[in-house]
Amino acid sequence: MTKPLNVGMIGYGFMAKAHSNAYAQVNHFFDLPYRPVLKAVCARSADNAKTFADRWDYESVETDWHKLIERKDIDLVDICVPNNLHAEIALAAAQAGKMILCEKPLAMNGPEGLKMVEAVEKARVPNMVWYNYRRIPAVTLARRLIDDGKLGRVFHYRAKFLQDWTISPDVPQGGTATWRLAIEQAGSGVTGDLLAHCIDTALWLNGSLDTVNAMTETFIKERKHNLTGKVEKVGIDDACTFMGRFANGSLATFESTRYARGHKALYTLEVNGEHASLAWDLHDLHRLQYFDHRDEGRLRGWRSIHVTDHGGGHPYMDRWWVPGLQIGYEATFVHQVADFLNGVKEGKPAMPDFRDAYRTQLVLDAVLQSAKDQKWVNVAKG
Amino acid sequence: MTKPLNVGMIGYGFMAKAHSNAYAQVNHFFDLPYRPVLKAVCARSADNAKTFADRWDYESVETDWHKLIERKDIDLVDICVPNNLHAEIALAAAQAGKMILCEKPLAMNGPEGLKMVEAVEKARVPNMVWYNYRRIPAVTLARRLIDDGKLGRVFHYRAKFLQDWTISPDVPQGGTATWRLAIEQAGSGVTGDLLAHCIDTALWLNGSLDTVNAMTETFIKERKHNLTGKVEKVGIDDACTFMGRFANGSLATFESTRYARGHKALYTLEVNGEHASLAWDLHDLHRLQYFDHRDEGRLRGWRSIHVTDHGGGHPYMDRWWVPGLQIGYEATFVHQVADFLNGVKEGKPAMPDFRDAYRTQLVLDAVLQSAKDQKWVNVAKG
Amino acid sequence: MTKPLNVGMIGYGFMAKAHSNAYAQVNHFFDLPYRPVLKAVCARSADNAKTFADRWDYESVETDWHKLIERKDIDLVDICVPNNLHAEIALAAAQAGKMILCEKPLAMNGPEGLKMVEAVEKARVPNMVWYNYRRIPAVTLARRLIDDGKLGRVFHYRAKFLQDWTISPDVPQGGTATWRLAIEQAGSGVTGDLLAHCIDTALWLNGSLDTVNAMTETFIKERKHNLTGKVEKVGIDDACTFMGRFANGSLATFESTRYARGHKALYTLEVNGEHASLAWDLHDLHRLQYFDHRDEGRLRGWRSIHVTDHGGGHPYMDRWWVPGLQIGYEATFVHQVADFLNGVKEGKPAMPDFRDAYRTQLVLDAVLQSAKDQKWVNVAKG
Amino acid sequence: MTKPLNVGMIGYGFMAKAHSNAYAQVNHFFDLPYRPVLKAVCARSADNAKTFADRWDYESVETDWHKLIERKDIDLVDICVPNNLHAEIALAAAQAGKMILCEKPLAMNGPEGLKMVEAVEKARVPNMVWYNYRRIPAVTLARRLIDDGKLGRVFHYRAKFLQDWTISPDVPQGGTATWRLAIEQAGSGVTGDLLAHCIDTALWLNGSLDTVNAMTETFIKERKHNLTGKVEKVGIDDACTFMGRFANGSLATFESTRYARGHKALYTLEVNGEHASLAWDLHDLHRLQYFDHRDEGRLRGWRSIHVTDHGGGHPYMDRWWVPGLQIGYEATFVHQVADFLNGVKEGKPAMPDFRDAYRTQLVLDAVLQSAKDQKWVNVAKG
Repeated sequence: MTKPLNVGMIGYGFMAKAHSNAYAQVNHFFDLPYRPVLKAVCARSADNAKTFADRWDYESVETDWHKLIERKDIDLVDICVPNNLHAEIALAAAQAGKMILCEKPLAMNGPEGLKMVEAVEKARVPNMVWYNYRRIPAVTLARRLIDDGKLGRVFHYRAKFLQDWTISPDVPQGGTATWRLAIEQAGSGVTGDLLAHCIDTALWLNGSLDTVNAMTETFIKERKHNLTGKVEKVGIDDACTFMGRFANGSLATFESTRYARGHKALYTLEVNGEHASLAWDLHDLHRLQYFDHRDEGRLRGWRSIHVTDHGGGHPYMDRWWVPGLQIGYEATFVHQVADFLNGVKEGKPAMPDFRDAYRTQLVLDAVLQSAKDQKWVNVAKG
Repeated sequence: MTKPLNVGMIGYGFMAKAHSNAYAQVNHFFDLPYRPVLKAVCARSADNAKTFADRWDYESVETDWHKLIERKDIDLVDICVPNNLHAEIALAAAQAGKMILCEKPLAMNGPEGLKMVEAVEKARVPNMVWYNYRRIPAVTLARRLIDDGKLGRVFHYRAKFLQDWTISPDVPQGGTATWRLAIEQAGSGVTGDLLAHCIDTALWLNGSLDTVNAMTETFIKERKHNLTGKVEKVGIDDACTFMGRFANGSLATFESTRYARGHKALYTLEVNGEHASLAWDLHDLHRLQYFDHRDEGRLRGWRSIHVTDHGGGHPYMDRWWVPGLQIGYEATFVHQVADFLNGVKEGKPAMPDFRDAYRTQLVLDAVLQSAKDQKWVNVAKG
Repeated sequence: MTKPLNVGMIGYGFMAKAHSNAYAQVNHFFDLPYRPVLKAVCARSADNAKTFADRWDYESVETDWHKLIERKDIDLVDICVPNNLHAEIALAAAQAGKMILCEKPLAMNGPEGLKMVEAVEKARVPNMVWYNYRRIPAVTLARRLIDDGKLGRVFHYRAKFLQDWTISPDVPQGGTATWRLAIEQAGSGVTGDLLAHCIDTALWLNGSLDTVNAMTETFIKERKHNLTGKVEKVGIDDACTFMGRFANGSLATFESTRYARGHKALYTLEVNGEHASLAWDLHDLHRLQYFDHRDEGRLRGWRSIHVTDHGGGHPYMDRWWVPGLQIGYEATFVHQVADFLNGVKEGKPAMPDFRDAYRTQLVLDAVLQSAKDQKWVNVAKG
Repeated sequence: MTKPLNVGMIGYGFMAKAHSNAYAQVNHFFDLPYRPVLKAVCARSADNAKTFADRWDYESVETDWHKLIERKDIDLVDICVPNNLHAEIALAAAQAGKMILCEKPLAMNGPEGLKMVEAVEKARVPNMVWYNYRRIPAVTLARRLIDDGKLGRVFHYRAKFLQDWTISPDVPQGGTATWRLAIEQAGSGVTGDLLAHCIDTALWLNGSLDTVNAMTETFIKERKHNLTGKVEKVGIDDACTFMGRFANGSLATFESTRYARGHKALYTLEVNGEHASLAWDLHDLHRLQYFDHRDEGRLRGWRSIHVTDHGGGHPYMDRWWVPGLQIGYEATFVHQVADFLNGVKEGKPAMPDFRDAYRTQLVLDAVLQSAKDQKWVNVAKG
């Protein structure tokens, strides 16, 4: 029996769209103990809330998130607002006993994140953070291969997240559409926005990072601010590169930028192990590259695995179409909701929960600290 | 104002799933004059119909398609059953004045297709056939580039559709899951199933085909039949290759098979023009390959266009996510429904309609005739 | 002990350059029983001969090929002239008891080729035709994999050779630089020039072709002729496509053109077998694509094998550089000379010899006959 | 008139082979003022020298490099010995007034390199270092595009050089074949061997590096030493990653390792500019990837430029084969010799000369210092 689970969405932007789609779609493809019901969406502007509700069939709207959280008919609160608002909402929602799904990064920084972790753990409410790329079938498959020992000892883990959308100095900072460029709303630039994804996946695939050494740059120093209307100093990092060492002895090389012309959302990762290597990128998300040194010598080569097969064990794919047919970006959220709902039922939370995301936050903090102090920084334990 | 439009689905298999998804999703992403309402699904077995209805939120079920067609509360009939049943249902639905969306290929052969065309044209009901690959953004973009004269005179059009799922002699023929291997249900093998797609796209991109010369092969001559339980002769073509000439003077090279180990659903096409060439394949459907001889000499190269951008004019993509994020196979059906609903409103039907699909059927007939007679065959005019 | 072997080169164009390079280089990389000595080069113009001799260190020049052949100090005659001159020279060289290396295609047609075969067989002189692509390491590896049974039963063999250098109507026909466009010098267009390569490889990899069905086209009907100075009808085929059936039951799909914008020398081949498939293309000649269905299900993918390794058994590569470093087009000729010289020593000729190339000629004849008669044609046995 | 230029080669290993090939081949393809004559080769063992001389047609052999340098009939000394021997030989050769071509890296460290620079500058002898990758046509084209302003302001330069040949602990260190693993012979590990290439190209394409921050690792701590026969501590770096800042304000990300399973010699570079980006890798060295934001919006994509064309301006390629046909690794040395010989004639030295290579050495020193001290280090000016 599938039970209804009432969702209250806070926010109406890009991520709210992706999450709403996941709630709407998940039961079409997965057999689950719960069926999300789109109960209410909250935006400061009633018009914005109404328009969003109409499109996604939310039953009602709110303009004050406190009200949404207080509603008895809401089981789950989904936080899809700029980073600076995550903590306050999450703390209130935890106190109200709601399940919480929070957009990434968890918080503006580690200490804020820790409060959120403590709140949900104290309230014992199911909680999860939307690091959705773990649920790309090719990435999930990568994890399984590592778990199965295919790679052996790992020597290198490298990841990049490259974009090019802020190269023009005409892009403003702040407000609704471009809050990611305003330090007071975003907390950081590419570090919290993009490297956060890379770090989450890395910790999942390769274990904890012990120490980091970072460099950041802000190429365009001033931009018009949407809130003040004035040209103001840009506080975020446009680019961030860091090196590091994982607890398992492997070396880390990470880079992110919004100034890599020609790349829209090129998240790439590669892991080099003693026996095998694997690589993946978001621009062709349904493919996993795999090289196995144990193959017959003359036949060794990087395999381009089209992760769309069924019988062979490609994660999630038997729920979708037929072999050879790819899924889209949005499927990652569907998978995450599916895993979450199963986790709620079984009392075995789907990852990453707040604590897991807090560990990523601690890496982010160390990275930013290192860039500021221009030296190696140890990552705090979470 | 968005008006409801009641859908009656006949069938509950793979294509019914893809179409239901399109109805469920289309208003989430597109602003349209109609909103499909999943009114009823029909299957011979009430259990199958019920299960499917539960998953996709159909309001009711039927077990006799005649009844579904007779229902006053059904505006649109979607035919998702084996090929041998298309005509009878379509004729009845046309007579009942329903809009009709029919799976491809339209019919078992040209004469049967012609009856269907005459029926819908006589009844003046909106009609369309699910040749969904036209609506892959990269393919739609290809059409626009051709329309804009980017290619100039076309010399070559080649297409392939390669699969490998029937290589094992243990795959049976006939019945529900493998009706595509039974000649009496499918009408033909890869010709009607896969080349039909290639031909539809080709006629759309490059105009009519005048003459063809084909070769077919059935590699595995006998398979167990699911309906009789006996090993029976295989009547379908496992592979089909044909050459031809288009009306515009370009040469055609087409091939399809289910015996190309390593390819799951590799539909590829390439067009070579005087000034430019383009190529595309279904395994990475969000990419268009483009070569322009008018580029500066030292900078000429095949461009891998990630057709996920917004402002630049990538068809449909501004309705989805952000640049760099790919969509899945299922989006093609969403696009087709969106175009259909707009077409209905404007009285300007979305293509391909039955007549268009009938023209594809005439090519299929010529191909099969040519393979049988081992000689060149002119394609009849439709 | 390495013995000198005196080479007499007839011709001074592109192929003469490639072959001279092979003679100059082969002992630098291979340990061989013979060392080619560049004894004489022959061109009708003494200036051309002299210039070529200076560049490649030929010891002497001739302006009459009869004289070259008569010279006692010439052991081996290399025929690098337009196709219409192959036979006469080869017959004379055979009669003079010289070893003969002849550019491809062997002859203008099958009957002419047969005379050449009979001449060299009667004279018992070592002979070989420069179908150099067999000696690309990736292609040689393909052959070994097939020999080792990796593919199992073969279902499909397809090959293309695409160029774009004659799209402009301003390219003339005939004479020295563009003799390939003049029917009286070339015998045919892409069929003898490009498909000849594809057929040679196919017969080597997949056995004999039984029957073919072809289509040819001449897109530009008239071109200025370099010899007459007038605009004349173009007699060659600009494009040729054919289907066919191999003796082993697999289907053939071949295509060649000089009107595929964006492709310079794109020779591609793919073989689909029951257990595995392989593919290769000339634009990245050092890579072999390989898919093996017997790989673990979730890890199946097309392997891009960089055929530059040593220990693992990549043919010829241990003679060159270190793993990862590619060789160039010219290496194929070096390999062929190396194999030839070893063959001479061992009395075990390197393939393809004249008879092997004659079999390719018979396929070319059947293809051209089929295109002319517009029907299936059986390939004669050679 | 082409004048002879007598070459004295010191060394008989892999690089001596590559250079000898270049001397043997260069006049076959380029029209030059000089023709290298392979006068003498020097190895400590007369047998090794003799074998090498036989293969490459050196006229004589020496077993003491001092003797070679003293010979009056030697114009040019080519130093192809382990790094620890470069300086002594170069100083002597300069004093003897010979032209000097030295393998990379120039020296064991900056101070040693400076002595070499001063020696050749004082002696006014033509000198060059074999950073051959500048002469890959795709890389030379990259330089021209940058010079022509195609990229605009540069934001990012990243390079990697990945190998996997030392993963096994059974690979020994020291001696002839594996001197690159012995600190006393090589000076460093991947830093001097592989990153040296990356840095040379970077300085050439993107100007000087101001400051670096590096991390090194030695994964396998002890290896058998070929000279002592004992298991000894490994002194070289197995992997090195560094970040940095170029003088033009762009950010540097570099990485090298011999522990990246699946990569044999994967040198990759990418430059991101305001208007355009370019990328290249050594495994497919004949291709340049190029993205131009100024292309029509819907047609923007990474172009895979097959740098084998003639008229269009692909550097060096008109000297080789026809468009579409790739050259090999060895061609880079041929190009470098051609440029050097022209430079000698024109009194305009081909780069990189010793001073240029010394600048690379200063970066290497800074990188190694940074890794040791775990902090940012400024690159000394050279």
